[in-house]
Amino acid sequence: MSRISLAQANAIIAAALDKGGALGLKPLSVAVLDAGGHLIAFARQDGASTLRLQIASGKAGGALALGISSRKIADMAAERPSFVASLGPIAPHGVIPAAGGVIVVDGEGAPIGAVGVTGDTSDNDEICALAGIAAAGLTAQG
Amino acid sequence: MSRISLAQANAIIAAALDKGGALGLKPLSVAVLDAGGHLIAFARQDGASTLRLQIASGKAGGALALGISSRKIADMAAERPSFVASLGPIAPHGVIPAAGGVIVVDGEGAPIGAVGVTGDTSDNDEICALAGIAAAGLTAQG
Amino acid sequence: MSRISLAQANAIIAAALDKGGALGLKPLSVAVLDAGGHLIAFARQDGASTLRLQIASGKAGGALALGISSRKIADMAAERPSFVASLGPIAPHGVIPAAGGVIVVDGEGAPIGAVGVTGDTSDNDEICALAGIAAAGLTAQG
Amino acid sequence: MSRISLAQANAIIAAALDKGGALGLKPLSVAVLDAGGHLIAFARQDGASTLRLQIASGKAGGALALGISSRKIADMAAERPSFVASLGPIAPHGVIPAAGGVIVVDGEGAPIGAVGVTGDTSDNDEICALAGIAAAGLTAQG
Repeated sequence: MSRISLAQANAIIAAALDKGGALGLKPLSVAVLDAGGHLIAFARQDGASTLRLQIASGKAGGALALGISSRKIADMAAERPSFVASLGPIAPHGVIPAAGGVIVVDGEGAPIGAVGVTGDTSDNDEICALAGIAAAGLTAQG
Repeated sequence: MSRISLAQANAIIAAALDKGGALGLKPLSVAVLDAGGHLIAFARQDGASTLRLQIASGKAGGALALGISSRKIADMAAERPSFVASLGPIAPHGVIPAAGGVIVVDGEGAPIGAVGVTGDTSDNDEICALAGIAAAGLTAQG
Repeated sequence: MSRISLAQANAIIAAALDKGGALGLKPLSVAVLDAGGHLIAFARQDGASTLRLQIASGKAGGALALGISSRKIADMAAERPSFVASLGPIAPHGVIPAAGGVIVVDGEGAPIGAVGVTGDTSDNDEICALAGIAAAGLTAQG
Repeated sequence: MSRISLAQANAIIAAALDKGGALGLKPLSVAVLDAGGHLIAFARQDGASTLRLQIASGKAGGALALGISSRKIADMAAERPSFVASLGPIAPHGVIPAAGGVIVVDGEGAPIGAVGVTGDTSDNDEICALAGIAAAGLTAQG
């Protein structure tokens, strides 16, 4: 398995949104990207604000760009803020330093894509991203 | 009805992709935007190339930007190529002069969003956009 | 009421500038955006510097992008500077983390646009934005 | 007189929109820029599409950028399309090659700003720009 199919991406989104509903979270937006950082599927729930595509994609795309979750990029930004800030203008898909962007890996640990969730706290966003990946039978980067 | 809901956007995408399947078209990508040009939902079928979000959004967002379908923008580009080319760098959501971007209107004819389809010929892309809008019980700009 | 009309936008601007005059503030600039972040009307008082459109629009557009006032975005930037800094390069209408950008809502609390004021202290800018919204008979997001 | 005041800019906009109303034109948008290409005032009539700030500013700003009206830039684009197209990405305020962008000059013929109108045919847009400039007691570049 070297790609996330559209069917799998839709399953990720549906499960992530279900998780948000079960937890009573604010309106969420979910982006699923392929390994190159290009969007496969996206959904923005009613009532969400306008920048959600960019934030969700920037969490997931930033994760792919650096090879680590956006939670770890947030940690990196706390230690090296100027370095992380310098990536924004040169990263085609953005780099958002906040939890909620998770890399999806194949059986050998290689990235096959990433999921980005935004709308609630970044901790809750990440819970929903992980729930979506698991529900689709895929594996999040450890 | 002043907004396209996520449920309606998903219905548009499902029906547009069904239409493409029924017609035996190449892999399609479908973007549904709100009236301000911000993405509500998106799907890119397996096998589609990487720039499809930007093309689908640029057809739909360009239609909203100018208030006419991307088919009419293509006609405009044939007559006034330099004018249409000049819009690209200044349009936040892009302007793609090719059929497949269709404005969705409310009962008074005001835009409530737009649909952009890309992947096959632009004529076929537009057929699928219109099929999606109709299947969701919405109205395409006349 | 689902849109801010040009007449309402002009009323907002006139009242915001009157408020600045009454308070003896520096030259102000006022932008009124629709719900999608697109400018409806703008005025820059004599003596104001050149970047005022971008700052006023970035306050108002950033508020719409994240669904909260630019005052709250400033609070967020104090806690999470790298996160807020990362939004600038990917936000079509900019994100300015300083008070003075206020969302305008309809009777159900849904955004119908936003007002951005710049030129004096950000606290004073916000006072003028709120005065403009109230004078036009509209409601600021609580 | 070396600057267009906000009061004059508002007078230009009001008169340009009145002209459009008298001629029964489509919804218009009018931008008034200072000599540096920075927006002084703007209005977008109800029913106008979303890209109107950029088009109006790009007509007026392009005129200032090259020192000739956007009508003459359209003529230039017909003869040298690649040259004009190359200006878009490097012009801070855009260059729109279509009539409707007119430079305002002082008594010695030096630019003090420009007016850009968009919404109807470019010929009609220019008629309204000229009407606005004349009504404000100012002089269009000959």
